Amino acid sequence: MFKTADPELMRAINRRLVLDAIRERGSVSRVELAEQIQLSRATISAITGALIDENLIHARHVQLANGGPRGRPRVMLELNPDATYVVGVKLAAHQISIAVTDFTADVVRSVTLPIRVTRQAVKVVADVIEDGIRRCVADAGLAMDRISGVGIGLPGIIDSPAGLCHQTPILGDGPIALGGLMVDRLGIPVTLENDASLVILAEHWFGHGRGLGTFAAVTVEQTVSLGLMVGGELYRGANGIGPEFGHLKVDPAGRLCTCGKRGCVDAYASEAAIHRQARKIVELDGPIDDLPTPATMRRIAELARQGNADLLAIYRDAGAKLGLATALIVNTLNPAKVILSGEGLLAADLMKEAILAGLEDGLSASPHRTEIIFHEWTDEVWARGAACLVLRKLYEAPLASGQSEDMSEEVAAWSH
Amino acid sequence: MFKTADPELMRAINRRLVLDAIRERGSVSRVELAEQIQLSRATISAITGALIDENLIHARHVQLANGGPRGRPRVMLELNPDATYVVGVKLAAHQISIAVTDFTADVVRSVTLPIRVTRQAVKVVADVIEDGIRRCVADAGLAMDRISGVGIGLPGIIDSPAGLCHQTPILGDGPIALGGLMVDRLGIPVTLENDASLVILAEHWFGHGRGLGTFAAVTVEQTVSLGLMVGGELYRGANGIGPEFGHLKVDPAGRLCTCGKRGCVDAYASEAAIHRQARKIVELDGPIDDLPTPATMRRIAELARQGNADLLAIYRDAGAKLGLATALIVNTLNPAKVILSGEGLLAADLMKEAILAGLEDGLSASPHRTEIIFHEWTDEVWARGAACLVLRKLYEAPLASGQSEDMSEEVAAWSH
Repeated sequence: MFKTADPELMRAINRRLVLDAIRERGSVSRVELAEQIQLSRATISAITGALIDENLIHARHVQLANGGPRGRPRVMLELNPDATYVVGVKLAAHQISIAVTDFTADVVRSVTLPIRVTRQAVKVVADVIEDGIRRCVADAGLAMDRISGVGIGLPGIIDSPAGLCHQTPILGDGPIALGGLMVDRLGIPVTLENDASLVILAEHWFGHGRGLGTFAAVTVEQTVSLGLMVGGELYRGANGIGPEFGHLKVDPAGRLCTCGKRGCVDAYASEAAIHRQARKIVELDGPIDDLPTPATMRRIAELARQGNADLLAIYRDAGAKLGLATALIVNTLNPAKVILSGEGLLAADLMKEAILAGLEDGLSASPHRTEIIFHEWTDEVWARGAACLVLRKLYEAPLASGQSEDMSEEVAAWSH
Repeated sequence: MFKTADPELMRAINRRLVLDAIRERGSVSRVELAEQIQLSRATISAITGALIDENLIHARHVQLANGGPRGRPRVMLELNPDATYVVGVKLAAHQISIAVTDFTADVVRSVTLPIRVTRQAVKVVADVIEDGIRRCVADAGLAMDRISGVGIGLPGIIDSPAGLCHQTPILGDGPIALGGLMVDRLGIPVTLENDASLVILAEHWFGHGRGLGTFAAVTVEQTVSLGLMVGGELYRGANGIGPEFGHLKVDPAGRLCTCGKRGCVDAYASEAAIHRQARKIVELDGPIDDLPTPATMRRIAELARQGNADLLAIYRDAGAKLGLATALIVNTLNPAKVILSGEGLLAADLMKEAILAGLEDGLSASPHRTEIIFHEWTDEVWARGAACLVLRKLYEAPLASGQSEDMSEEVAAWSH
């Protein structure tokens, strides 16, 4: 429901609005801020004053080329990248990616550990993540006390508020209290999320989701996942567990899925499914377990591009089912955009036509204006998304415990 | 995104919290209010004082049975039912239901006009709604200036903010500016909504949705619809158009739907679809157009209950597809509850087993805790929901233009 509105909440909301606006524009004057977010100049002045005191933003005096009104320098506000740092982690079946970012979510140091997560005990995985984070932070020239928090993304059903992983294809049977394991090791706040939610956060800050309140991301990796933003917030269901997508049934008479049911989109479009089908047709190197390496997936796509008709049919079928499942999201939720992303989209050229046809087939006749975006894959999206997970919280609350003045009473004058 | 938080928004949020709490509890003291919604006593006092001045709530002095602390009477706050009135309208294929409710959404007068909406021009329908409203208000002993607004629910794709009906099975081709047509006739605010959203609002205030932030309602009538509440607000997609459900594809190889595509849930579970299938099997009275009357639907269900195996199979198939479509909502959105409702559920006894089996078939293995509710049908749900549509807005903003005092400065003492 509605939260109670008290001055503290009001301050948190406005603080985040101001920090978001400064971040989005890079460099902005107080007058521009007041115009953009429609707060009084007095309120803007109070908030930005507190942010400067906290060293989260810097004021830079710029002499305008034309001298400006009355020849006075313009004061531009910018985020202080060095205000604090966070760590983003992405867990995948065959690797752990770790990135340290600054307060603007720029990556300052990253490392990818090529560890087959699937065959290790959870405690071992937690140890490896700890070692990787400590090394990465040290290599960035930082002490651990400069790190405000860690965001971790992984595939599966994640209860973020509880730090629990209920189900994941990469860590064995749940529930797994990965959040708690990492807090024990690191002693700083740790936030878990479904990996598709990381894409949502990164796209919201830096990509195709900028300025959008309600949009979705479908990610194709070992599994197929959905991230959802509604009204500017990550969507989590009634009990903290976010959207689930891989086991949407797109064909009741369809292929048997690993979950024991028939016709799930995951049984067609996930990298694991494409790999399972492909190895019936062609010889493939790599580990014999069910989860293929990126190299194996590249090899399958390459063979398809060389004209293997059976492999091409696998990708077409995957695309068609992915299109149908995406249509279900568009029909039900009518988001501004659906962004298709993830490592599996490296084979987008083999699936795109079928995805769009499946989408067309599944869409109702409603006046949808949802835009479908194929987002070229970059590793940095995950890391930045995991960083955003932590930074969003920092944007709402002061780092230190100070800042108790009543904004409405403080009035300041400034030049523009 | 986030709205700017200014004192005005804060006041609106807290005002609604207070009015909601008084409404939910019926009669409540200021101390209990302060405990429940965690606002300071001073703020509670200021808000309730303003609400008393506006005549929206009454303070009633109650002498406690045991004398109470220091023997002083307890002051209980209650909504003033007579504060203002609203009108709820439900448009269906064969009838127009109109209800006048008081400020607590209690129905004070209602009328049902048995008019076959489907064969009239939109302007005629608007005229008939106007006449019905004016008569119903007069019969309630009220002048039109006591009516604060009209809420209208109808099946289809509704753009509520624009007052547009994009697509509906009952009024011909859209877009139809029904909101504007009614404002022209009545001169008071009119709000359009999808009829499933009316169920959401009524359930939220009076039924199975009480206290829930995120839940869904599936309504089975001439068409199958979905209403969705997320975080205490009606879900509307990125461009103001709410969730769409009837044309979710549950079987790519399935029955041809009226929309021209295959396997939509509407092609199986809507009353129109059941009617289309049933009349191939049994002789049915009634108009020859595609949309059956309630009496015809009762007749079909009755024949099925008498043991007609072909009709029973139609209901089982409808239930199975409805269960699969509901599973898609549970998987994707993980709501606290899905409430199945609408006139079609009068045949719930013939479908329930198949609905639950279809749901089980379609659900992923995730730890869903979504509760499935079959809500017995009452006409009043629609009318109250349409009234809530208007009342929710009134709860946020003062009826008159007064109330500009700063709550935080006003401090009052009260006995509890």
